[in-house]
Amino acid sequence: MEEIYLDNSATTKVYPEAAEKAFQMMTRYYGNPSSLHSKGLEAEHQLTAARKIIASSMNALPEEIYFTSGGTEGNNTAVFGAVNALKKRGNRIVTTAIEHSSVMEAMQKLEKDGFEVIYLSPDINGKIRIDDVRSAVTKDTILVSIMAVNNELGSIQPIEKVHRIIENAKSPALFHVDAVQAFMKMPLVPKKYGIDLMTVSGHKIHAPKGVGALYIRKGVRILPLHSGGLQEKGIRPGTEPVPAACAMGVAVDMLSADHERHDIILSLNSYCREKLSEISEVVFNSDNDALPYIINISIPGFRSETLLHYLAEKNIFVSSGSACAKGHKSHVLASVGLDGDRIDSALRISFSEDITKENIDYLILCLKNAVSSLARSK
Amino acid sequence: MEEIYLDNSATTKVYPEAAEKAFQMMTRYYGNPSSLHSKGLEAEHQLTAARKIIASSMNALPEEIYFTSGGTEGNNTAVFGAVNALKKRGNRIVTTAIEHSSVMEAMQKLEKDGFEVIYLSPDINGKIRIDDVRSAVTKDTILVSIMAVNNELGSIQPIEKVHRIIENAKSPALFHVDAVQAFMKMPLVPKKYGIDLMTVSGHKIHAPKGVGALYIRKGVRILPLHSGGLQEKGIRPGTEPVPAACAMGVAVDMLSADHERHDIILSLNSYCREKLSEISEVVFNSDNDALPYIINISIPGFRSETLLHYLAEKNIFVSSGSACAKGHKSHVLASVGLDGDRIDSALRISFSEDITKENIDYLILCLKNAVSSLARSK
Repeated sequence: MEEIYLDNSATTKVYPEAAEKAFQMMTRYYGNPSSLHSKGLEAEHQLTAARKIIASSMNALPEEIYFTSGGTEGNNTAVFGAVNALKKRGNRIVTTAIEHSSVMEAMQKLEKDGFEVIYLSPDINGKIRIDDVRSAVTKDTILVSIMAVNNELGSIQPIEKVHRIIENAKSPALFHVDAVQAFMKMPLVPKKYGIDLMTVSGHKIHAPKGVGALYIRKGVRILPLHSGGLQEKGIRPGTEPVPAACAMGVAVDMLSADHERHDIILSLNSYCREKLSEISEVVFNSDNDALPYIINISIPGFRSETLLHYLAEKNIFVSSGSACAKGHKSHVLASVGLDGDRIDSALRISFSEDITKENIDYLILCLKNAVSSLARSK
Repeated sequence: MEEIYLDNSATTKVYPEAAEKAFQMMTRYYGNPSSLHSKGLEAEHQLTAARKIIASSMNALPEEIYFTSGGTEGNNTAVFGAVNALKKRGNRIVTTAIEHSSVMEAMQKLEKDGFEVIYLSPDINGKIRIDDVRSAVTKDTILVSIMAVNNELGSIQPIEKVHRIIENAKSPALFHVDAVQAFMKMPLVPKKYGIDLMTVSGHKIHAPKGVGALYIRKGVRILPLHSGGLQEKGIRPGTEPVPAACAMGVAVDMLSADHERHDIILSLNSYCREKLSEISEVVFNSDNDALPYIINISIPGFRSETLLHYLAEKNIFVSSGSACAKGHKSHVLASVGLDGDRIDSALRISFSEDITKENIDYLILCLKNAVSSLARSK
């Protein structure tokens, strides 16, 4: 039975070309990039090629790209690294109530350490109000961390206006963007938006799990989270995840060259929305202007997990909340003001370009059958 | 021209079977282990299988194995995690002067934070004296961190006696062992030696770069270095490096089943030592009872880098110092008391089981040619 994988915001299938690159790095260019001999250099050249591709995809310089083990490490490095570098200049941090757990938990740790953290709440569509950012940023704010796209709702945040707000407030704050869900899915040029630090991850874009990258704007200084060797200019010590990093280079290259993908996803999104609207029980949690890769819905009265397992039996894979929360109640949906029943029945459908309209038709059929055959939860 | 890769302590070629497992995880079992649906579960099952293999190789429980991104993260997590968990119970840390940079730099950071760190110096053979450990550990010592095998010399440390010393001192200290160079190369059962925390890495044992594991003895509590999701029971948040971790499972399984390897390495080691002895200029830095996988020599008067590049041109790959130090002067060789000329001319030869006696013969021939044809450095 064909797999209909609609959980691409949790993780993606690695492109065969990217997986083959990883295989090649493991078995042929297996040297340590830090080794001085030619076997090390050939690995370093491959890593540099991947770095250039990733830099180029965001119109950045290769030396602004630091490989990490993934989104969590990238977000942690950015948040703690910025705060540790700037803590003498202020005590205030501005973020949102809908960040990924790797930013959220870092913020809660910083609060325990005595920092004042402002969590901005989103509107009903999951978007932060730019006026709230303006009110929150003061001259003793040292970090503003706002995600580009929310991982559960797909809501796009007004990051393009933040840099100006920081400047106007005469704040020393660094501006960090968690772009894990946005990377390669919308135009994202950190230099254009005055972003100082930007986190991206490999496994959300058809590269392997175990690699990510942190953009650090040239001239910006943060303190490393890890202690050790001189890899990644000491910002991320430890032997680089070379096979996964080079595979990420291949995936980014393929995505950059694919100019039809965005239209395919837009068309899938509107087809899916249209068909979902035919099920009267469905309520949309994602707004119309959300990133088209994500549609979050609720079917009040039917628990997410029940629906998720029902669909999985038909080989359709969707998500309740984010994978990282593993069944815990969504802080994102709560913060946009949804009631308990709607939160408990939320499903996230997230696309990749190999999904077809026939796949969507089958999803809709199965959802209709679920609604008519499953018992309501109360 | 055949590659003669004698830098296996820097990194290794991934076993084809392990690389194929990684490929399979990227393209077939690509789900997120934290996803609730069956596509996530199948990835989790694979990860659990790898965890069991690694646990079994050290006679530990699967729940005592935490996947990391590699040795540096493992060492950092152990050192900072232990100190942060125990800092109310004491201020003293005991380690050695010959640790890997990921322990050494962590210790220097802790010193800056006000902890008293004792760095034990080794004897001329690169071994820590157990009496020095006994004198150093006091009742307000909260961490003892000693590597199992030094990465440059191969010197084996007396870790089996440390647990008793900690007990006798009535110290609350946790005992951490950096076993990156020792793992799968000598018997290493943490439970037997009273080890609380033990770091291992994938890419030193024919698994990919980008994965490692931290053994945390059941009942031992450390604080996580990263903040984020609930993966690895919150000790190491972030999506696991699943392809590399499962490949590590395969490599460990293969190494565990290969009962001839140790004898092959022993025989290679003594053959290589015998042949090296025929070059009168060679001085041995590694002692006879070092781990047989590593022979460190000096050829005073010939700079390491010159020799290393000369050999690389013949497709023979060895190392000066450790790869992570990338050409910086070895703190290990300095601490065993070698003079500058001997440090500057040090070469590390490190074996894997696919090296042949003919490869060694060719290495010796090339070294002899180097000595007779290259200009002395002074």
